[in-house]
Amino acid sequence: DVVKDVDENFITTFLSEVDNKEIEQNLRELTKVPHMATTEGDEQTVQFMLKRWKDSESGLDEAWREEYSVYLSFPDPKNPNKVTVVNASNAVLHTVREKEINYTSDQNDPNVVPPYAAYSPPGNIKGKLVYANYGRPNDYMLLNETMDLRGTVAITRYGGAGRAAKAINAAPYGVVGVLVYTDPYDINDGLMSDQNETYPHSWYLPPSGVERGSFNTLYGDLLTPYLAAKGIVQKWYSPSEITPIILKHVTFSSKITRIEFPALDGKMAPNDWQGSFPCPYNFGGPGFKAASTFKDSKVKVDIGNYDVVKNSSNVMGIIRGSVEPDRYVIYGNHRDSWVHGAIDPSSGTSVMLEISRVLGRMVKQGKWRPRRSIIFGSWGAEEFGLIGSAEYTEQYFTKLSERTVAYINVDIAVNAPGFESTSVYDNWIKYTNKTSPTHGVIPRFLEVTTLRLSITSGSLLWTCPTRTIGARIYPAYHTAYDTFDYASKYIDPGFTSHQAVARTAGNVLLRLADSLLLPLSCGDYAETLEDYLKEAVMQYEEQLKAKDLSMEPIKLAVSSFRRAASHLEEVIKNSDLKNEPLKVRMINDQLMLLDRAFLDPLAFPDKYAFRHVIWTSSSAGKPTFPGLADAFAKAASSGQQSDWDKVHYHLSILTQAIEGAAHTLTSTF
Amino acid sequence: DVVKDVDENFITTFLSEVDNKEIEQNLRELTKVPHMATTEGDEQTVQFMLKRWKDSESGLDEAWREEYSVYLSFPDPKNPNKVTVVNASNAVLHTVREKEINYTSDQNDPNVVPPYAAYSPPGNIKGKLVYANYGRPNDYMLLNETMDLRGTVAITRYGGAGRAAKAINAAPYGVVGVLVYTDPYDINDGLMSDQNETYPHSWYLPPSGVERGSFNTLYGDLLTPYLAAKGIVQKWYSPSEITPIILKHVTFSSKITRIEFPALDGKMAPNDWQGSFPCPYNFGGPGFKAASTFKDSKVKVDIGNYDVVKNSSNVMGIIRGSVEPDRYVIYGNHRDSWVHGAIDPSSGTSVMLEISRVLGRMVKQGKWRPRRSIIFGSWGAEEFGLIGSAEYTEQYFTKLSERTVAYINVDIAVNAPGFESTSVYDNWIKYTNKTSPTHGVIPRFLEVTTLRLSITSGSLLWTCPTRTIGARIYPAYHTAYDTFDYASKYIDPGFTSHQAVARTAGNVLLRLADSLLLPLSCGDYAETLEDYLKEAVMQYEEQLKAKDLSMEPIKLAVSSFRRAASHLEEVIKNSDLKNEPLKVRMINDQLMLLDRAFLDPLAFPDKYAFRHVIWTSSSAGKPTFPGLADAFAKAASSGQQSDWDKVHYHLSILTQAIEGAAHTLTSTF
Ligand SMILES: [Ca+2]
Ligand SMILES: [Ca+2]
Ligand SMILES: [Zn+2]
Ligand SMILES: [Zn+2]
Ligand SMILES: [Zn+2]
Ligand SMILES: [Zn+2]
Repeated sequence: DVVKDVDENFITTFLSEVDNKEIEQNLRELTKVPHMATTEGDEQTVQFMLKRWKDSESGLDEAWREEYSVYLSFPDPKNPNKVTVVNASNAVLHTVREKEINYTSDQNDPNVVPPYAAYSPPGNIKGKLVYANYGRPNDYMLLNETMDLRGTVAITRYGGAGRAAKAINAAPYGVVGVLVYTDPYDINDGLMSDQNETYPHSWYLPPSGVERGSFNTLYGDLLTPYLAAKGIVQKWYSPSEITPIILKHVTFSSKITRIEFPALDGKMAPNDWQGSFPCPYNFGGPGFKAASTFKDSKVKVDIGNYDVVKNSSNVMGIIRGSVEPDRYVIYGNHRDSWVHGAIDPSSGTSVMLEISRVLGRMVKQGKWRPRRSIIFGSWGAEEFGLIGSAEYTEQYFTKLSERTVAYINVDIAVNAPGFESTSVYDNWIKYTNKTSPTHGVIPRFLEVTTLRLSITSGSLLWTCPTRTIGARIYPAYHTAYDTFDYASKYIDPGFTSHQAVARTAGNVLLRLADSLLLPLSCGDYAETLEDYLKEAVMQYEEQLKAKDLSMEPIKLAVSSFRRAASHLEEVIKNSDLKNEPLKVRMINDQLMLLDRAFLDPLAFPDKYAFRHVIWTSSSAGKPTFPGLADAFAKAASSGQQSDWDKVHYHLSILTQAIEGAAHTLTSTF
Repeated sequence: DVVKDVDENFITTFLSEVDNKEIEQNLRELTKVPHMATTEGDEQTVQFMLKRWKDSESGLDEAWREEYSVYLSFPDPKNPNKVTVVNASNAVLHTVREKEINYTSDQNDPNVVPPYAAYSPPGNIKGKLVYANYGRPNDYMLLNETMDLRGTVAITRYGGAGRAAKAINAAPYGVVGVLVYTDPYDINDGLMSDQNETYPHSWYLPPSGVERGSFNTLYGDLLTPYLAAKGIVQKWYSPSEITPIILKHVTFSSKITRIEFPALDGKMAPNDWQGSFPCPYNFGGPGFKAASTFKDSKVKVDIGNYDVVKNSSNVMGIIRGSVEPDRYVIYGNHRDSWVHGAIDPSSGTSVMLEISRVLGRMVKQGKWRPRRSIIFGSWGAEEFGLIGSAEYTEQYFTKLSERTVAYINVDIAVNAPGFESTSVYDNWIKYTNKTSPTHGVIPRFLEVTTLRLSITSGSLLWTCPTRTIGARIYPAYHTAYDTFDYASKYIDPGFTSHQAVARTAGNVLLRLADSLLLPLSCGDYAETLEDYLKEAVMQYEEQLKAKDLSMEPIKLAVSSFRRAASHLEEVIKNSDLKNEPLKVRMINDQLMLLDRAFLDPLAFPDKYAFRHVIWTSSSAGKPTFPGLADAFAKAASSGQQSDWDKVHYHLSILTQAIEGAAHTLTSTF
């Protein structure tokens, strides 16, 4: 029936069938061995996904794998990465621990990749140690005012700046190597002892734990920007966005962080430089403190990383739509991990498999078929820079652009224990800070993430409010402690949080796939534009007037958009949708494609692949139009006319993008 | 009825109602006075179009005007453009005629703009005259081998190279000014006398006639690339693509072409430098021939052109579709002329008005409404660089991209007398040289023109086969002789050719607007890709192999495309379209959007707005993929690795664009 709406009874059935024990079992299977991208463990997960999705009782219509040849980076077992302390005669005084301590035998699995900074170039350097806080631009700048940084090795802590940024920000000062550690302040509420404070006794990071990660700045396969990494002919590009200095992790238990910290000498650093070690963090060095056993010694960093092109697989599955098979709702999760990846990403994979099991069963039993096609995407090589999903979008760019209603991403499903017993909805209401004139307080669930395709997207995650704990992420993130044991003991015993996520994500998925009229509100979009405009006017209008730049056109554009959105909402209200399937299709096209009007491939020449003029990333930190905000910050700082011209440019493209979007919502001409 | 197909009886009725006398009367009205863009005459044509399209008996559903503030160039009546010959003491020996001779009183209309090169910069230069053939790169290069071109004024003839190119190609040699004339060889079958050979006695160009034109290289409003020229904020760009040297026309009757031609001295130039003057064309000069009364004199060129931003209007009209109002068939014609513009463009305007009259009447009488919306576009400021239509597409970019089934353009409707009495179809068959394995000999009617939006487009024009006459265009083109008198005496007495064009264009329009299934064949598209591939393999495969570049992936891509096209054709054959309106919509979306898959905004960074990887313009002159052809020509010439990398790049993006397009034709995943 082409005008059937979503069936609330079916959703209720779906919710009741989502089984926490199934999710637990999924997780157990997925985390038996480490499954880093392109390893044998990863291939096993590919087979596992295919088996589930091809199951005769609860599988999907079709499942298959898609391979890409992607540029990865690994440590060399024959030439392992090392951090040592060497004295003037090059005698090794100390070797930093290379491996996380084993507590549960998981950490001893031979396939646990030693902690390493992926995409750090290989090399051998030596230098005096300095502490550089989070490695943000200001941190190095401040440090550089008190000492000569040339030839030094900077030790930084996770947080505050992206991984690669800690090296990129250091390079101009002549720093030759960067170390990264996790300060217990940032992740552990200050706790440090594995005797009774950290894992295996709690969820906190043990002293030898190391957060692995990818240290590049682009996403997607580095060799093939804008093209799918397949076939003979595509690899032609020399990767240039890899970090300029070698990088390595150290643990917070290491002597060179805990005991011989150079920061123990010298002038005291500001408050936001302090961590949890029981001592002040100062602008010490370069080099170890005067009283140290390592005084006059240098830190030596030897990196044997090698780059290699390997085949990474995405696993895809589909339930074809009965009425509009050419309209896609895509649900994605990455499958690859750094080590066992229990929380990241297998908590999400477990949830995805449970959703697909319940829905698959309904389809196989002939009880249901969605109106629109549901596509499940199990992405590979995400940890190396969102590679699997990026290549997928590059390969199917046009088709996805034209037909995708929405994309739901669930990477980590649950990363914190539940603290309260409120409903999901009430919980959201409590912790959000957004108030809508139309709706009152609303949860910021559906953050529209910026994709090059400009498809309405949402991300779902059960997490801790950051006011409760200081951590930016769960403590075992990317370490050898992110295991089934950890997840089942300290994150979600009973897996009922996972179940809640599966129900919620599935609920959204079903409404997107089955609602006659797409549940996308252009009035809400207008509200966001109005909020952004209000902020922009407040921040910029006066100074722009002084430069002869008027904001009247963009105000008019936002009003036009609001009028057009209201008009479409009136049309919807006055339409007899149940009797006009073509009209439904027409309106749904308008709703689905609304975001595409904001794409401008020329708007951000310095950003790789970012094209959406409303949702592109911004460094200005203001809740307003990103291109305008960044251009304004630059012009206000430089004062140059060419930079004010760029502000004018961004005002222009924004204005016309908003008007263009409004035109798609009005009646045909 | 949502599954009704096009009504052949209705088309027959339409064909029979198209009236040649109505077309004649339209032309009479439109050509009463000159109507150059943004003049009072142009405003009168705006009012005329609005009146017709708002007529209560034969108008459209709605008609309106859209204004843009565009950057134009005009001669200054207070400082008219002049070409003179001056001797060493600066005495004026000769002044080139500034105005076309009056034969019918039309040429004496005060609003006839004097011949001028639009967008030539103002200036005053003086130099020795040289003849530079068509002003192509090779022409200047060859000339430069025999003489020093610095400080010279080059006289070139129309043809062979674009208008602006004649100056752009000259600039590197130090040429200070360029004159352009029409050689009787290129336009007049050598004829020159207005006593009995040319107009007013025939259609040939009289001696004082001058082809006006725009001498810039971009299209659209020069100040607002990629943005609509509206509102306060958009004008921020400094036009840079205007010609580097001042330009002026001279007539072929002028002394400095006919009698004192510098080319009369010196070594004889090659065959393709010869024209129709009764003398050899030599590599003479710089300066007039030794025996000339002008010997030792220079040519002085004074240009008073000024640039100005003025409001230009498009007039739009719509007949809304009854079933799919959000699907557009757009029919366009530009309305502005250089002078009276009888053939260019008013022959087309007259035809468009007749089509809209017949269809409008049917709608007003409640006898018919198209399935899809028909939009008529009467573009302004085309003569200055396709400005009106370009701004329109920039303003409504997203909406047009997503919803336009096809664009039909009829600029000049008829530009030559009919020589034979065959049917339109047989006539096409006879003069085409394309043979299709599927269809046999087919007329190349629907040339897909390259637009930034990648909308299927076609251009329609009744013309002379170039084998019959040597002219590249009808002789009175862009002159003060393109009048009603000219059109009705020498191009289409009786206006039956115009009628045939109106019937043919209307026929196509109706089939696009009313057919249940869009009459667009993806199998034909596959055939073109196969032709292009065959040529590319023949031209390039061996040399590419030598550079380690394989054509196997692109061969696979074209095969995939063919398979996908065949698959869709099977689906169509096996579908019960009359009972599945949503399926019809789905398939029509695939057909309509097929071209969009070939858009790549990063593919041609040196070309303004060209994005279609199959149909973009090419300078290599080969019937194959343009980006590949141009990249190959460059690499083969330079031999540089970076140029071969660009060939690799074009092979890659082509391959993936073709694969991506194929994906849109297959079943959903
Ligand atoms: Ca890629
Ligand atoms: Ca423009
Ligand atoms: Zn993850
Ligand atoms: Zn991760
Ligand atoms: Zn024209
Ligand atoms: Zn013209």
